[in-house]
Amino acid sequence: MYIFFNTSLQHPSVFLDQEESKHCIKVLRMRKHDLVCITDGNGTEVQATIIDDNPKRCELLIKEKILHPKASKYNLHVYVAPTKNVDRMEWFVEKAVECGLDSITFIETDKTERSRINLERLQKIAISAMKQSKQWHLPYINSTISWKSLMEKDFNDGAKFIAWCNAPEANYLPFLIEQSLNTETNTFHILIGPEGDFTSEEEAQANTMGFVPVSLGNTILRTETAALFSVMTVKSKFQ
Amino acid sequence: MYIFFNTSLQHPSVFLDQEESKHCIKVLRMRKHDLVCITDGNGTEVQATIIDDNPKRCELLIKEKILHPKASKYNLHVYVAPTKNVDRMEWFVEKAVECGLDSITFIETDKTERSRINLERLQKIAISAMKQSKQWHLPYINSTISWKSLMEKDFNDGAKFIAWCNAPEANYLPFLIEQSLNTETNTFHILIGPEGDFTSEEEAQANTMGFVPVSLGNTILRTETAALFSVMTVKSKFQ
Repeated sequence: MYIFFNTSLQHPSVFLDQEESKHCIKVLRMRKHDLVCITDGNGTEVQATIIDDNPKRCELLIKEKILHPKASKYNLHVYVAPTKNVDRMEWFVEKAVECGLDSITFIETDKTERSRINLERLQKIAISAMKQSKQWHLPYINSTISWKSLMEKDFNDGAKFIAWCNAPEANYLPFLIEQSLNTETNTFHILIGPEGDFTSEEEAQANTMGFVPVSLGNTILRTETAALFSVMTVKSKFQ
Repeated sequence: MYIFFNTSLQHPSVFLDQEESKHCIKVLRMRKHDLVCITDGNGTEVQATIIDDNPKRCELLIKEKILHPKASKYNLHVYVAPTKNVDRMEWFVEKAVECGLDSITFIETDKTERSRINLERLQKIAISAMKQSKQWHLPYINSTISWKSLMEKDFNDGAKFIAWCNAPEANYLPFLIEQSLNTETNTFHILIGPEGDFTSEEEAQANTMGFVPVSLGNTILRTETAALFSVMTVKSKFQ
């Protein structure tokens, strides 16, 4: 069943936005009294019936509300320098959301090749990937923040890692994640740098903030592959 | 340094193909006596000097030959049903090669959405990903084979897994891979089905062949994400 998205599912009646109304009425050809499924991306699934099949502003009446727990048993926050090529970030967002994580934050480091991202488009991709992978929780996709702001952020508990190519003696991320399992929250913060890597200064600052330098293995991964490898590694530790 | 590709590095002199000759002479503007690096994708790296800077058929003289061991400490063979959307298979090939594996074979199952693939293009993507990730071993990218041929294949040693969505009681792939580590060869064969999954008959046949049904976790992954998750899971077990 197709799942619609609406952040506000508090009232007995709910309106789909213009795009989703069109999809519901024009594409799926649904009509008054038909039953549809909607999520707010915050764990809520509702079953609702169409009471006004307006193709621009479809109105539905909520019949049943189900609360779903988060699919993943961990909290994962990835901070990544946007790649020059927009497609590469788009597919990272799609794949990361499919696997399950809590937030993706774009960071502007010294060597970041692109600071502007199309946040709206990336959020749409995230919504679509959430629906596709049958999840009910939408990860936060955050706009680009400066390295300075990132370093001033109050990272609460959790294991903190920085992938740094220039640290051949660093431990392998999957082994360190294994070691940091079974803490109370299973929370992970992982920093992934641009193609040119973090600078020594950035690495030193992150170190002061408690980020442990990690290796991602003995082949050179592109930024988006490195970011996805960190997501899939965390996913692989939890059934 | 840019790395060129040539399968035949046996003779003292070697010719680049038309495309690589153009890239070397026209794009990189290299000239007679310049030193270039070439690999055969079979572990050999050679340093060679240009003796004829012909932009259509550049000739080089091999100066030094280095043999590299394979980057990955495992043998991984992935068999995947091609997706309808060609891009999705292309990025799977790129990412899988970056991470390290031995072969990708496309399989035609009952519900496979596309049987024809552009093998030449996929092999080019693999060569490019091998160079990009600084590896010297090119995985085999094999054309589509029928399910019947796959089931008649002589799988030598190694752990064999089939990702099957319809097996909620199946064990989680990462946990099974962990259990099957430290065998003599660390060889893995993993089957990934199409969007519509394998049929019960296919699953039963694979079972008879020794393939163990596995789960890929509690979110629904697209075919290419599932295939990459299996590659990254194996990678995560070996530094």
